Amino acid sequence: MSVFTCVDRPGLEAFLRHYHLGSLLAFEGIPSGVENTNYFVTTSTGEYVLTVFETVGREDIPFFLRLTAFLAEHGLPCAHPVADRDNRYMGELCGKPAALVGRLPGRSVEVPAPEHCAQVGEVLAELHAVGADFPHRRENARGPAWRARVAGAVAGLMPAQDSELLADELAYQSPDNAGGPLAGLPAGVIHADLFTDNVLFREDRLCGLIDFYYACNDTYLYDLAITVNDWCSLADGSLDTARAGAMVHAYHARRPLLDAEGAAWCAALRAAALRFWLSRLHDKLFPRDGEVVQVKDPDVLKHILLARRRCGDDALSVWPSG
Amino acid sequence: MSVFTCVDRPGLEAFLRHYHLGSLLAFEGIPSGVENTNYFVTTSTGEYVLTVFETVGREDIPFFLRLTAFLAEHGLPCAHPVADRDNRYMGELCGKPAALVGRLPGRSVEVPAPEHCAQVGEVLAELHAVGADFPHRRENARGPAWRARVAGAVAGLMPAQDSELLADELAYQSPDNAGGPLAGLPAGVIHADLFTDNVLFREDRLCGLIDFYYACNDTYLYDLAITVNDWCSLADGSLDTARAGAMVHAYHARRPLLDAEGAAWCAALRAAALRFWLSRLHDKLFPRDGEVVQVKDPDVLKHILLARRRCGDDALSVWPSG
Repeated sequence: MSVFTCVDRPGLEAFLRHYHLGSLLAFEGIPSGVENTNYFVTTSTGEYVLTVFETVGREDIPFFLRLTAFLAEHGLPCAHPVADRDNRYMGELCGKPAALVGRLPGRSVEVPAPEHCAQVGEVLAELHAVGADFPHRRENARGPAWRARVAGAVAGLMPAQDSELLADELAYQSPDNAGGPLAGLPAGVIHADLFTDNVLFREDRLCGLIDFYYACNDTYLYDLAITVNDWCSLADGSLDTARAGAMVHAYHARRPLLDAEGAAWCAALRAAALRFWLSRLHDKLFPRDGEVVQVKDPDVLKHILLARRRCGDDALSVWPSG
Repeated sequence: MSVFTCVDRPGLEAFLRHYHLGSLLAFEGIPSGVENTNYFVTTSTGEYVLTVFETVGREDIPFFLRLTAFLAEHGLPCAHPVADRDNRYMGELCGKPAALVGRLPGRSVEVPAPEHCAQVGEVLAELHAVGADFPHRRENARGPAWRARVAGAVAGLMPAQDSELLADELAYQSPDNAGGPLAGLPAGVIHADLFTDNVLFREDRLCGLIDFYYACNDTYLYDLAITVNDWCSLADGSLDTARAGAMVHAYHARRPLLDAEGAAWCAALRAAALRFWLSRLHDKLFPRDGEVVQVKDPDVLKHILLARRRCGDDALSVWPSG
């Protein structure tokens, strides 16, 4: 979303006095992101990103910030949160929780190539491996209960065909059927939102992972599916097998995928499409107020979901063979 | 120094298997530095600097790495050490202690301008402020006992005029005279080697502090004097008052300097010149073996020492007035 909270210079200077970051030189709002307000902040000690948490539960924020710190400390290309004079990562600005992290170089890619996708697959596998040692956990707040709740809110506001699709997919993914199609697969800390706008490249080398504010404990395969759906879909929602193959094989080279994960691959791709279709539907149908609000098109995810439901040779062809 | 330990690809790959850093893409020795062997290392997760510790006491290394981590976590522009799979910063390579830190962007400046010096002064004051909360301490291994030991080793190998200068300066700085001229001044964690080659800039903005391997607990004013001597001296050793004034005033704006520090300013500049004159003399007279060894000219520091001993209006003019 973009900018929901307007930060002014005196307020930001007062906030920065809790840190050892020299003097404020410049700041500007970042018009991207869907959930929180972000600013670039330049001080005499460097460049930072300020996040003002808008909808994230205050009790979840230490998990996100500690995880980002832990991953950065293990060499993953993510920015370390900045500790204040009292050694805390979470501060308060305009009455809301807020945090500073270092600003990473690089930009998102607009049109990912297989070479980008391979790098993302490899780093995602490393993220899963590092996260396995992370001592805290957080349930996925976008799990089955959330799906049911949002579906209830949006179903009556959709064309009949769409609400039938939604009901059918919810039934397929339901945890009431032996825990759902992903039950029992390897799980741990996942990013859960590694879309193209959350990965930075410089000269086609991956150099940054950002926005860990959906991170949680869930199935690794689901995280890979979220990432494949966003990085490796064609305009009609179908899978680009060159890109998807590059991503899945690079992931597999760092964390070998299991046969059981292969059997659930199409279900994971569908679950990932469903989750983002639902959140985009909700954001479109129940918009929030903000200075600059970015609403992403739900239909992109509906088309991906429809394509994954026809899951066939394309999805299976990208899977590493035994 | 340069490269004392030759690292080969199989050895480096074996070392990297202790980390979550993906696969090794490239590495190359860094032909600068005087004390340790450094390599740039590129893996699929990012770019790092590998340091193999050559002469640093193994027991000191945790202090250096924890300090660098602490400063990075508080937003100072230094690279966080990378923790391995067992959460340790210090590893072992070729039978020597070794560590990886993130690689920072930017380059050293060749010819510092007052604008660079002001940024360095400000960040040095922040470093002193952050370090005050750091819970570990390390005595300065380049203190009075070291000075006396090195002076004993080099005095007989120098021209008589130089050894007289050395003896006279050692007597002036001696802690036997009421603790020496810097006794009782504010002290804490200092960098102790913030020369131009340890500060990185990008487009004239300071963006990196590196090489904390002399850091220790000592007088803040001494750290400022070390920095001023290197950044703000003319070719004949005299002080460039424009650069020195910019650095000292920017420092003062973040940590107000005391009258007692003003009274000891010339003594601090002399102590700082003495310390690096001695170490350069030692390195020149007792060279170590290495693939690429960089020896810096001791005479540069002798001229600075001579100029500071004439300490007059130039040094005092840069001091912030009450």
